Amino acid sequence: MKFYSFWRSLAAFRVRTALNLKGVVPDEIITIDLMKGEQCQPAYREVNPQMRLPALIDGDGPILFQSVAIMEYLDETRPEPPILPKDPRGRARVRALAAIHASDSHPLIVPRVRNFFEQELHLDEPTRMKWIRYWVGEGLAALEGHLARDEETGQFAHRDTVTMADICLVSHVAGAGFFNVDVAPYPTVKRIADTCMAMEAFAKAHPLRQPGAPASLSH
Amino acid sequence: MKFYSFWRSLAAFRVRTALNLKGVVPDEIITIDLMKGEQCQPAYREVNPQMRLPALIDGDGPILFQSVAIMEYLDETRPEPPILPKDPRGRARVRALAAIHASDSHPLIVPRVRNFFEQELHLDEPTRMKWIRYWVGEGLAALEGHLARDEETGQFAHRDTVTMADICLVSHVAGAGFFNVDVAPYPTVKRIADTCMAMEAFAKAHPLRQPGAPASLSH
Repeated sequence: MKFYSFWRSLAAFRVRTALNLKGVVPDEIITIDLMKGEQCQPAYREVNPQMRLPALIDGDGPILFQSVAIMEYLDETRPEPPILPKDPRGRARVRALAAIHASDSHPLIVPRVRNFFEQELHLDEPTRMKWIRYWVGEGLAALEGHLARDEETGQFAHRDTVTMADICLVSHVAGAGFFNVDVAPYPTVKRIADTCMAMEAFAKAHPLRQPGAPASLSH
Repeated sequence: MKFYSFWRSLAAFRVRTALNLKGVVPDEIITIDLMKGEQCQPAYREVNPQMRLPALIDGDGPILFQSVAIMEYLDETRPEPPILPKDPRGRARVRALAAIHASDSHPLIVPRVRNFFEQELHLDEPTRMKWIRYWVGEGLAALEGHLARDEETGQFAHRDTVTMADICLVSHVAGAGFFNVDVAPYPTVKRIADTCMAMEAFAKAHPLRQPGAPASLSH
């Protein structure tokens, strides 16, 4: 198994967490430096024409891309421990909670968006930060709104075992950390993120614990 | 079954298509007028704290939200005809293709984003259109890049039966139409969208064929 990754990518963080939870260790981890634009170079474009991270090659391929699709694949091919509940309603809830981050929040704050703001719209750094922090906050509010209300919320986002919803929630909170958005006003989100980060599968997957992460950010 | 919908919502279009494909007719369709901001009113907020469309209540609830999560739920509870392949690699490919639109493109161009641009960043209409058309184009290029390369591409996005990938592709092309983005440079995308739109399940789900859609747009 080959895993195309970068320390800072939150989408790679999600897949790394799923791999850790399932005890799967890729044979090879290939760094694609998003800050140098390596995802747009021909070598990676040939792997993933969408030119985004992460990508995974399991055995003889073809490539798997998009973090949620990869996590679903891992759950179907390495079912233990499951990261989705068994019942359709529970699965729908977990997938929807995951999508608050993976569809409605994270894609709005990724480097390619920030680059477009800077290079094409000539928006300054405070404006870009206002944008990012707004959408991070919207995602936190949406997560809290559902989690604080729903009786299915338990020790984790869905009852008392880790699911894809927790993986995405933790990714969201890590993003909030990068951009100094306070999660204290979202106590259910914060509680679940803290519970997850106490687990080794999450902690060792964190962006700041990957090779290449600047030491200055990890304090 | 209650379906919370709005004619113009592409996310509602996706769920409507899935319902049509499976021959499921909701007992009640409740219009939430996104242009009047009804999704943020207390009545709908109580249904979906994320305040976004669509939402579905199947029997005694709880609510289902997020279009992809709803489509997966429909496929698990009404399996015929399937909208996901049976094999894990095929399922991963379909989900990833769907995410190009549902995660990486559509959330960047929805009304709430355009409103933020206008009201918070004071960006003018040409700038907002530049933004929208750029991300619609990026999604088209990513879809074409995968579809034109992959041997699994058939009459539809994945082989010769309709999947969630086609539903999302058609939603993407409908969005391109709203914003006058030419799809001709993406011939595989265009071919598949045309094939799908010749099917009644897609055609009658189209935003411009819903109650409330302005007649002036449908020509």
